[in-house]
Amino acid sequence: MSEPLKLKSPADFIGKQGAGVISFGSGQPDLPPPKEAFEGLTIRQDLRYGLIQGELKLREALAKEYPDSTAENFVITNGASEALDLIFRSWGKGQKVLLPRPYYYSYLPIVEMAGMVPVFTDLVKGRIDLADFNKKIKDCKAVLINSPSNPTGRVEEIETLREIERVTARLGVYVVSDEVYKDLIYERENYHIHGSHVITVNSFSKTYCMCGLRVGYLWSADKKIVDDVCEMKTHTSMNTNLVGQDMALAAMKVPKEYARHQLEIWRQRRDFIYKGLTDLGFDLWKPEGAFYVLPQCKNPREFVSTLYQDFKVITYLGEWFGAPDRIRLSYALDIKQIGEGLGRIQAAMKKVRVF
Amino acid sequence: MSEPLKLKSPADFIGKQGAGVISFGSGQPDLPPPKEAFEGLTIRQDLRYGLIQGELKLREALAKEYPDSTAENFVITNGASEALDLIFRSWGKGQKVLLPRPYYYSYLPIVEMAGMVPVFTDLVKGRIDLADFNKKIKDCKAVLINSPSNPTGRVEEIETLREIERVTARLGVYVVSDEVYKDLIYERENYHIHGSHVITVNSFSKTYCMCGLRVGYLWSADKKIVDDVCEMKTHTSMNTNLVGQDMALAAMKVPKEYARHQLEIWRQRRDFIYKGLTDLGFDLWKPEGAFYVLPQCKNPREFVSTLYQDFKVITYLGEWFGAPDRIRLSYALDIKQIGEGLGRIQAAMKKVRVF
Repeated sequence: MSEPLKLKSPADFIGKQGAGVISFGSGQPDLPPPKEAFEGLTIRQDLRYGLIQGELKLREALAKEYPDSTAENFVITNGASEALDLIFRSWGKGQKVLLPRPYYYSYLPIVEMAGMVPVFTDLVKGRIDLADFNKKIKDCKAVLINSPSNPTGRVEEIETLREIERVTARLGVYVVSDEVYKDLIYERENYHIHGSHVITVNSFSKTYCMCGLRVGYLWSADKKIVDDVCEMKTHTSMNTNLVGQDMALAAMKVPKEYARHQLEIWRQRRDFIYKGLTDLGFDLWKPEGAFYVLPQCKNPREFVSTLYQDFKVITYLGEWFGAPDRIRLSYALDIKQIGEGLGRIQAAMKKVRVF
Repeated sequence: MSEPLKLKSPADFIGKQGAGVISFGSGQPDLPPPKEAFEGLTIRQDLRYGLIQGELKLREALAKEYPDSTAENFVITNGASEALDLIFRSWGKGQKVLLPRPYYYSYLPIVEMAGMVPVFTDLVKGRIDLADFNKKIKDCKAVLINSPSNPTGRVEEIETLREIERVTARLGVYVVSDEVYKDLIYERENYHIHGSHVITVNSFSKTYCMCGLRVGYLWSADKKIVDDVCEMKTHTSMNTNLVGQDMALAAMKVPKEYARHQLEIWRQRRDFIYKGLTDLGFDLWKPEGAFYVLPQCKNPREFVSTLYQDFKVITYLGEWFGAPDRIRLSYALDIKQIGEGLGRIQAAMKKVRVF
């Protein structure tokens, strides 16, 4: 019998997607990038340094998507990850940051590496509990929200987002709004919370299926934040890679039909996995955006380990996302693979008690 | 009369290279990347996440250039900048880092942002003074050396590098060796200092004229350092952009003749600017590598400001590199432009007293 996996972090599963493995692990689209993106490859022969803030044409194209914005409101970064890292590093050490829990697994290390102190507000039925939020936000420097959410798949109500916008504006607390799944909402358009106290973080990774290209950005109406981030980035990574920026700009030219078609695929998968897990008896929130489910699960370490070692199925521990009694599955797989995976999960449930 | 420039950092000159401006500012090759690099553009259609550590093929190719190395000794990063940033962030706060002064202008912010404490050893005639070095290194966690050096243009003697290697090994002090100009040494091959206490930082930017692509790397024989850096990078930027890595790998296939030809161009420029500035009366070290000169200069703020405002010539304050009585010029310009720039410098010397 094989030794149980140690399961310290999602990195334990990296490079383990061998033959026959069904991976509900990594959170990235399996779909190909739009063909338009590759037109970006032919543009550039000059590879000298670009602007730290990002290529002007790309920022101008983004400004058209954000109301009352100009190119000056954006900084192009190495994915949303770098945007988040630079924002928190630019603030003073020792200050508090409110994190709705469960949270994306990099949030905690990013906040802690910046020397800031995490404070948690636990989600209720996968949504922000405004009473608890309003109590805890008062002495925080910032809150980091993520709607649609990885790992919960939930989308906050527009009224909740507006209330957060108002409360934080009144208190002078920053809102860092990670909206990387903004184009993957099943029921409505994204609501872009805004104001001079809001910093939006976004990415081309999920919308255009180009995670490995690492092009993300932040939006802020506060010039000091833009300047501070650019000043740090001058020393920590310089400009974001130019070819990636060209490809991102080219990808933005895809017709609206592309996003609608993608969304239809995601919706079918969402319905399929939600019904499949519910039928198996799991208790989970129905995803309203992104492509994750976070079912409740007893003995999660044993189950995740057994699933991988005996059934070649990768899932992630909810513990990595601040949800120790759950497991996370990404459904960025075609329906056939999801079906095969669900069958193996059913078989594994005979070995490990999950309810 | 125009107001004098405030001159806070090199960023003050970014985006100011308009028509008729001669820029001795930015430290990047003006030469084009090798045509082979662009073959890397056609390889990839899959833009899903790559390995945090970097693409295996690229690391295997690098391993052939470093004695006794395997792909496991490398982490591919967003330029040398990110490698440096992650290395220092992975160490404990409050510990001392020795910096030979003058230093590359990002070193100080990188060390300070990591919460570490800089200690300085002043160069003598542009070279490390081993007596002072040996005295100050004792209670440091690490030393950050840069040979060939930006901004001095100097290359440390092999015997000096060996002595540093020995002393630090004996004391258990890390050496971070920034060798991004290793292929731009005029008189000899690079000496790669090594040992399990050495972390080499390098880049494709200068050798292959692809600064804007942001592909660098670190080499370390210490598995813990490689693991710690990868763990941080998982949260702060994920994999380095995949298209850039493809292009870097393709660039490595250029014949040796490419580097030799480049070096010949740099040597001619070096000889030309060194003689030109010496003839004008400046006191400066003769560059042995890289493409910088750091002449002594009285009233440097006034001179740099006048050069830009009245003569459209960009130069950098030595102060930004820890050398307040000097100015820095990059000679990454063709001979004709260098000649034109020298003529304008001569004219500006009639307005500002520089000796």
